[in-house]
Amino acid sequence: MFRLVVVWCILLCTQIVIAFGSKTRHFKWEVEYMFGAPDCMEHVVMGINGQFPGPTIRAKAGDTIAIQLTNKLHTEGVVIHWHGIRQLGTPWADGTASISQCAINPGETFLYRFKVDKAGTYFYHGHFGMQRSAGLYGSLIVDVGDGEKEPFHYDGEFNLLLSDWWHQSVHDQEVGLSSKPFRWIGEPQTLLINGRGQYNCSMAAHFSNSSIKQCKFRGNEQCAPQILRVLPNKTYRLRIASTTALASLNLAIGNHKMVVVEADGNYVQPFDVDDMDIYSGESYSVLFTTNQDSSKNYWISVGVRGREPKTPQALSILNYHPTSASKLPLSPPPITPKWNDYNHSKSFSNKIFALMGSPKPPETYQRRIILLNTQNTINGFTKWAINNISLTLPATPYIGSIKFSLKTAFDQKSPPENFSEDYDVMKPPVNPNSTTGNGVYMLGFNTTVDVILQNANALSANVSEIHPWHLHGHDFWMLGYGEGKFSKMDKKKLNLKNPPLRNTAVIFPYGWTALRFVADNPGVWPFHCHIEPHLHMGMGVVFAEGIQHVRNIPNEALACGLTGKTLMKNEGN
Amino acid sequence: MFRLVVVWCILLCTQIVIAFGSKTRHFKWEVEYMFGAPDCMEHVVMGINGQFPGPTIRAKAGDTIAIQLTNKLHTEGVVIHWHGIRQLGTPWADGTASISQCAINPGETFLYRFKVDKAGTYFYHGHFGMQRSAGLYGSLIVDVGDGEKEPFHYDGEFNLLLSDWWHQSVHDQEVGLSSKPFRWIGEPQTLLINGRGQYNCSMAAHFSNSSIKQCKFRGNEQCAPQILRVLPNKTYRLRIASTTALASLNLAIGNHKMVVVEADGNYVQPFDVDDMDIYSGESYSVLFTTNQDSSKNYWISVGVRGREPKTPQALSILNYHPTSASKLPLSPPPITPKWNDYNHSKSFSNKIFALMGSPKPPETYQRRIILLNTQNTINGFTKWAINNISLTLPATPYIGSIKFSLKTAFDQKSPPENFSEDYDVMKPPVNPNSTTGNGVYMLGFNTTVDVILQNANALSANVSEIHPWHLHGHDFWMLGYGEGKFSKMDKKKLNLKNPPLRNTAVIFPYGWTALRFVADNPGVWPFHCHIEPHLHMGMGVVFAEGIQHVRNIPNEALACGLTGKTLMKNEGN
Repeated sequence: MFRLVVVWCILLCTQIVIAFGSKTRHFKWEVEYMFGAPDCMEHVVMGINGQFPGPTIRAKAGDTIAIQLTNKLHTEGVVIHWHGIRQLGTPWADGTASISQCAINPGETFLYRFKVDKAGTYFYHGHFGMQRSAGLYGSLIVDVGDGEKEPFHYDGEFNLLLSDWWHQSVHDQEVGLSSKPFRWIGEPQTLLINGRGQYNCSMAAHFSNSSIKQCKFRGNEQCAPQILRVLPNKTYRLRIASTTALASLNLAIGNHKMVVVEADGNYVQPFDVDDMDIYSGESYSVLFTTNQDSSKNYWISVGVRGREPKTPQALSILNYHPTSASKLPLSPPPITPKWNDYNHSKSFSNKIFALMGSPKPPETYQRRIILLNTQNTINGFTKWAINNISLTLPATPYIGSIKFSLKTAFDQKSPPENFSEDYDVMKPPVNPNSTTGNGVYMLGFNTTVDVILQNANALSANVSEIHPWHLHGHDFWMLGYGEGKFSKMDKKKLNLKNPPLRNTAVIFPYGWTALRFVADNPGVWPFHCHIEPHLHMGMGVVFAEGIQHVRNIPNEALACGLTGKTLMKNEGN
Repeated sequence: MFRLVVVWCILLCTQIVIAFGSKTRHFKWEVEYMFGAPDCMEHVVMGINGQFPGPTIRAKAGDTIAIQLTNKLHTEGVVIHWHGIRQLGTPWADGTASISQCAINPGETFLYRFKVDKAGTYFYHGHFGMQRSAGLYGSLIVDVGDGEKEPFHYDGEFNLLLSDWWHQSVHDQEVGLSSKPFRWIGEPQTLLINGRGQYNCSMAAHFSNSSIKQCKFRGNEQCAPQILRVLPNKTYRLRIASTTALASLNLAIGNHKMVVVEADGNYVQPFDVDDMDIYSGESYSVLFTTNQDSSKNYWISVGVRGREPKTPQALSILNYHPTSASKLPLSPPPITPKWNDYNHSKSFSNKIFALMGSPKPPETYQRRIILLNTQNTINGFTKWAINNISLTLPATPYIGSIKFSLKTAFDQKSPPENFSEDYDVMKPPVNPNSTTGNGVYMLGFNTTVDVILQNANALSANVSEIHPWHLHGHDFWMLGYGEGKFSKMDKKKLNLKNPPLRNTAVIFPYGWTALRFVADNPGVWPFHCHIEPHLHMGMGVVFAEGIQHVRNIPNEALACGLTGKTLMKNEGN
């Protein structure tokens, strides 16, 4: 009995310590357009408080983040999504226009208040139109809570937020994507590391045969490279997140191996790599040890994977103390694996397992939803569709329309759970036509859901693209990948033993990807391809669960669409 | 007594006939961006139902216009202002964001329903951010009601909507204007007539010494000129309206005199001109007679006035039957008067008098507001200010915040009615600093208000610009113009006998302009410089009157700002 009391007392004290250690971190942010030169060419970028990328948020697990976001744009609404944060109890703070809230109008302020419950590498970004592509993003790093320890050791850390950059304005890109004939945005001009890239020069030009100039930096240019200053014989944590609009990336550090330890804010069983793939929406932590010749510097290179690259590698410099940062590495930058070497990509993905002791998935699913990914046409417009429905978001946020049963706000029919048995995923669609829709998969509260993402051939023959799918409001267990059409037999291939928890899962060309999650987070949660133009073209679905438990949606989140029409204010008329 | 009954009966019948003759005209419009080539260069333009300029509305006096406007933009709100329509009884349909309504959110539909009570030449345009500059405009022509007659004869008519066009996107223009250091938008690349202009060629190149190419058109290009096909020896009405973002214009028809008969939807005493000035926000009707050699064609030319022109003349062709439209005029286009020949401009303005029988102004004013127009700096940002206050619109529309006494929605202090006696309007401001504000001039209902617009020197020495001021919700009597600072003595110079009714009044460099109106239209009405970047930089004021008589504001008009926060919908929570 005495021992029980002692244990109880210790438990209580721990809770109290955690409660006292955690705090609310307040921020006042203003979103506006400004001039910048992310890749040495002047362009309008979307910034926060005059910064591009936006300010890095640093917090501890258990903290509450309170951001008063003021929209200083002239005619555009804005929202910010906190990518990887599950928004437990605050689904209205997920920052998805038409889903968790109305876009914040110009001149208005919205309070994002949410808890960061789990240490990890996260980021935030715009989730309205293609504002992420315009530069609305930044890093969100959550450290372990006081008294907690990471399951690995490191002496210092760096943070790299990766993105891609176009010289055509996002507004013009949007018009092209929504036009008949369709105009594709093309490959990015530049890859950015922490908002910095080089367009009209390369730091490694002297190694190449191309006519591109060697970069010369004074060091204070906005496009000057990120320098990672390290001491010899130390271990560093490199946090990497990709908020690219399109590009799948591969990162390598010249002469240094990396040990992957975290993926999407979840610890993984450490494994060594020479280079690593990062898809849009993913984040990783890797450890590397500065065990190389300290009289030299080393490249960190980021190149394009999964699409024939027309964009040069982005480069940063790993600068060993006491070597000068301006001394360029003596060997050429690491070569990015061939863009279509998918075996290399799959090999990387298949090495990722949950760290021992991580939560395990329920043994069986209660509902299985199979989602066929196809490229389609609707009235001559080019779209992406899921089970033949291309998502067009409604004017009224689902969180309001479901909560208040506004049945005309969106398609009440549940979208299909599967696709036709005889669909040939290896060939272009026989009938390329699809329809638009905005129906919702209503998930039973606490149901265990399996989703099978099924890739297929696009509109052109012999084309099947990579799509990184991101789920809001949850981590899911990444059960496995396979080739061709998913079949009953494939069930055996699923990893139920130590699948990693992720929030983003890639589908490989002509393949399938299986994941499992528990619908235990009351709210409305999009699940979508994280490629910005693909989402714009309809590549997503919407899940909703436990809406009856959603409480205290701020009025400001619902002042649009049908939820904006039923106002008290007219009483005074 | 019998005669009285007969007269009464006739009057009643007339009313009934008018009531039956008038009707509601329904439109369904979608606003979206699209690709276009207004001046032969491809660019994104804002269009309505796939058209740029937007569709022309044609109605009869007494008709009701009902436009269901759907916002198909991806991230921007939108409103449309019906320029020159007084919105008697429907102040919520004036289409001014932050003033008469909340901007319509993407995906939402707003019903503009209003009466066009008075025949005349009007137009419509965006009134949110700088969306007018992006191409959101079109014509609104109101014919006389059934059984009514215009006070002049004509055999046919044409409509020319004039605008100016930039190759820099409006979004980028906005960022430049709001930046420190300030970046001016510069002069337009092209002048457009009905959305058509030529950038990389001129139809009259063979007359000039410049290196510009001669245009060659097949005739179906979007930038091919407007052709006005006329029969010999007829009289035509030419309706002209200017929705330019910046340029003051001058129009002339080669070899043809014009008779001005209408200004801003009000009849004027007819007078002859060879050329005419048109400021942004103005509209005119002129008559011309096809009494020239019918074996030739003639130029219609439009050039820039009031700013040193860097933009070539816009040209259209007056095509006499049976001459081929492709036969170019044999003489060079009419020369636009020198840009700074202000005497020429004043001479034109001073010829405009009300048609006999038009409503006369009250003999005296009850309130006089003097508005000093200055260019200023605020924290290093370049602005325009009125009595030292630069207008920044609030997030909550005034029509709601005044009606429902939401006192935190805008500055409750009334803006100044005058400026310092010792201010030297001939010199740059001694102290260029001003402040931002959004206070309202609350006008007593049915008060007769005089406004004296006082021009001054801008920030640079020896610079004073033209500003065309446009009043919403009213026509005003244009009482007179004068030089230098308005003084008590100038009262004698005012025309109270036959001043024309207008909705737009220009102020000339270093001069003043006096106007009078009766505050008899319940609503909130901006009065502002119609130059788009000047308004964006704060050059405007807000009047409010008779708000207690405003009824039935649609809920959709108030679903933003503070009026959007007090919602019924939370009751279900």
